[in-house]
Amino acid sequence: MVEAVAGRRARSGGGAARRAERTGMRIEAARFITRGIPNLDILNEEALEIIEANAETVLEEIGVAFVENPRALKLWKEAGATVEGERVHIPRGLARKLCATAPAQFTQIARNPERNVEIGGKNLVLAPVYGPPFVRDNSGGRRYATMADFNNFVKLGYMSKWLHHSGGTVCEPTDIPVAKRHLDMLMAHMTLSDKPFMGSVTEPSRAEDSVAMTEILFKGVDGGLNGRCAMTSLININSPLTFDSVMMGALEAYAEAGQACIISPFIVGGAMAPVSVAGTLTQVLAEVMAGVAYSQLIRPGAPVIFGAFVTSIDMNSGAPTFGTPEASQVTYGAGQLARRMGLPFRSAGAFCGSKLPDAQAGYESANSLNMGLLSGVNFMLHACGWLEGGLVSSYEKFVMDADQLGILHRLAAAVPVDENGQGMDAIREVGPGGHYLGCAHTQANYQTAFWKSEVLDYKPFETWEEEGARDTAALASERVTRLLGAYEAPPLDAGIREELEAFIARRKEVLPDAMA
Amino acid sequence: MVEAVAGRRARSGGGAARRAERTGMRIEAARFITRGIPNLDILNEEALEIIEANAETVLEEIGVAFVENPRALKLWKEAGATVEGERVHIPRGLARKLCATAPAQFTQIARNPERNVEIGGKNLVLAPVYGPPFVRDNSGGRRYATMADFNNFVKLGYMSKWLHHSGGTVCEPTDIPVAKRHLDMLMAHMTLSDKPFMGSVTEPSRAEDSVAMTEILFKGVDGGLNGRCAMTSLININSPLTFDSVMMGALEAYAEAGQACIISPFIVGGAMAPVSVAGTLTQVLAEVMAGVAYSQLIRPGAPVIFGAFVTSIDMNSGAPTFGTPEASQVTYGAGQLARRMGLPFRSAGAFCGSKLPDAQAGYESANSLNMGLLSGVNFMLHACGWLEGGLVSSYEKFVMDADQLGILHRLAAAVPVDENGQGMDAIREVGPGGHYLGCAHTQANYQTAFWKSEVLDYKPFETWEEEGARDTAALASERVTRLLGAYEAPPLDAGIREELEAFIARRKEVLPDAMA
Repeated sequence: MVEAVAGRRARSGGGAARRAERTGMRIEAARFITRGIPNLDILNEEALEIIEANAETVLEEIGVAFVENPRALKLWKEAGATVEGERVHIPRGLARKLCATAPAQFTQIARNPERNVEIGGKNLVLAPVYGPPFVRDNSGGRRYATMADFNNFVKLGYMSKWLHHSGGTVCEPTDIPVAKRHLDMLMAHMTLSDKPFMGSVTEPSRAEDSVAMTEILFKGVDGGLNGRCAMTSLININSPLTFDSVMMGALEAYAEAGQACIISPFIVGGAMAPVSVAGTLTQVLAEVMAGVAYSQLIRPGAPVIFGAFVTSIDMNSGAPTFGTPEASQVTYGAGQLARRMGLPFRSAGAFCGSKLPDAQAGYESANSLNMGLLSGVNFMLHACGWLEGGLVSSYEKFVMDADQLGILHRLAAAVPVDENGQGMDAIREVGPGGHYLGCAHTQANYQTAFWKSEVLDYKPFETWEEEGARDTAALASERVTRLLGAYEAPPLDAGIREELEAFIARRKEVLPDAMA
Repeated sequence: MVEAVAGRRARSGGGAARRAERTGMRIEAARFITRGIPNLDILNEEALEIIEANAETVLEEIGVAFVENPRALKLWKEAGATVEGERVHIPRGLARKLCATAPAQFTQIARNPERNVEIGGKNLVLAPVYGPPFVRDNSGGRRYATMADFNNFVKLGYMSKWLHHSGGTVCEPTDIPVAKRHLDMLMAHMTLSDKPFMGSVTEPSRAEDSVAMTEILFKGVDGGLNGRCAMTSLININSPLTFDSVMMGALEAYAEAGQACIISPFIVGGAMAPVSVAGTLTQVLAEVMAGVAYSQLIRPGAPVIFGAFVTSIDMNSGAPTFGTPEASQVTYGAGQLARRMGLPFRSAGAFCGSKLPDAQAGYESANSLNMGLLSGVNFMLHACGWLEGGLVSSYEKFVMDADQLGILHRLAAAVPVDENGQGMDAIREVGPGGHYLGCAHTQANYQTAFWKSEVLDYKPFETWEEEGARDTAALASERVTRLLGAYEAPPLDAGIREELEAFIARRKEVLPDAMA
């Protein structure tokens, strides 16, 4: 079913309103979340100070490795670190001092200025799943992802009201040569959506391609790119304490171009970090401080995000586990540490280990999403579509999670206590034993009073049974078909499109064709 | 499958260890949760003061109805309220003043003293689903609940490590005459479990039967019942602002016997309360203050709980909806109001509207469970087994939810920052690029480091597929069979059992046989 839809050609511009009317679909885009509620701070001052002091000890005494990266070693030495081989020992306080030039909040622009996002402060920006080599849907099962799948997920992201960001590798298009696929992926984000997106990080030259294509795209936008941040890209640290030259090369390219990076330890607790929460937080903080400091050595003021990808491990099987309390504790703590550094914070997502979009997926993802909101996350990658520990992008789970993101928007808002919010007229009108459905206050407010799912089942049992007793995955599958069937590409200037196509053609001519 | 197991006779005492060994089941019982983390307070001081002032206005100006209850009207008049017909107008400040004699925390004793629970303060006691007329399991589908189902759910509760309480009407045994079923239900809690339980509230005389049976049961416990609290029972308010004579009759019986009541508005937002969060909180506070004040007029010092059962409504269909942000906002706010009154707080649960234990059930339940932990709930009814808006007790969801409750235990604990928690030795031992699985710190801590599900799937994809590609409901179904197959009743003195049986036989002789 999804396969059939994948073959449709996106039509650019116009007709969206008519199509929406015909199909009953309205394409809306919510503004990024700005919290009106506090964060949950689970660590007290003493715990935070211990962890911060220990992180400085780690940087000074143990140090971090910058692998195959003479430029980094040179810059660290000049900044005052002690370099032994590839090991960089950072004196107490130096990393934190270098981090101080990174902005606390920055704007990532989109080609549709209404989709610009503010990353940092009380804001929360939601982006879809990143990285899976497989996809799954109800009809086709689990299979290697293709470029057609990639395009479908970008379209679903564009049509998801509560998603603010188009993301990056929404799935890995395994049918395109490795050295060329970043070009097609960027083209999909640039043409099939008008939301902000991420650049390639798998090779420094691919980061440069990403910047070059973004410069072309923004020729169509007032002011052009002109050094403004239009990409937020994912730089993983090889935990523990190792910065490889590929990721650092991409970081260097982006920082120099004023593009944002998420500097993110990749932690499976018990494998890449200590089995204890405080120990993991110590390592995360040390790693992020070293990475962010390095970005500021490349270009002071370069926008960066304090990242923390955290899961725990099933100590029996070695499998990563998701939605677990220890991962939540690390995330809550990392949020506090990030805020004390004055840096935007990336963590959480609709994480789950389940193979199917079933109850396990629901529990684990909801645990992670709630924790993401309350831990003060500013940029949430993997906010929808993640399945099977990140091996699979799920069509059904994409729309199920994206629907749940509406809950985060409502929950983040301050409770109104103005006259309408107080509702005293309603209580007076109805009185003991009465019913509120028909009262004036209800009539005036009912359309916006409550968040409403566009996926979940609210029908009476008998109706639900007559309609086939469908579970959530079946309902979601239907929504996927409906969304992709109603998709209309946002308009794009034909000249810009041609220039992008020409750039891609030139690059593809010189890049190799290996598939792995 | 469950049906087959339901026919087994519980064997009392002994053999549990041998059975556990043979079946690979260990029956453990966790202590109730004592939070080491803060609550999330979403309302500021100004909002709280507005709501508190408005609640006093509601009590004074609109008043509350005590229906067909001359005793209540007399007591309220003597206390200083203005009574017009059945409407009680409570002068500003009077209800709150009367509430002051209610304890901030109390002990509910169990026949096994190790299962005593502390209700209030930083504690959280978890109890199973309450009230559904239907049950559902994977093999038998949805059907009216019977006494055999009731017994099964009590057994599952007894065997659930993270459940501290046996609950009350875990399902409605529709095969027993209405006027007699409370006797069999109590007998099940008293004999098939040794955890604390709830009493009957459907008739004042049934509350008296509950107290009488509890007095017999506690003859076998040091000190006897002797006025101590051994039941926490659910008294719903007929929102808006109405206290019916059946529920108040039960409340009176329990308060006089020193037994605890949850005084709980039953709110479907938009139907029984205003569509706004602050308006709903105003009504909830007014109702609880009136109800708690009345309990203290009956007997100053009677243990009570500030209850709030809250859902929102789908304004299109009128169906109640669960796991929604507005219900969460009301619950967070109600927790703050309860703490300001110095009363234990009951709310939340594994709420869902789904017809199946599917992804919807997972999302909605996890949303509610997380909110329940972080809103400071002290007594969580419906913490497992709730399905289809409370119409159905689900076997599979019971064990799925009960498993998730383990997460709340871990998440509620303060993060250790002692030397072992800091894990600096591990970071030193492993260093950049190393692996933590084999290090000394991991070896010393791995068995207790991470919470581990006993239901969810952590297997590699290939293994999972070979084993039948089972979803969560199928895995849970298997666990239900295993648990019920391994069940052993906790030992009970034969004399006590006979006395309970004799009491029930006497009462059944005089009670009517109507089935509805």
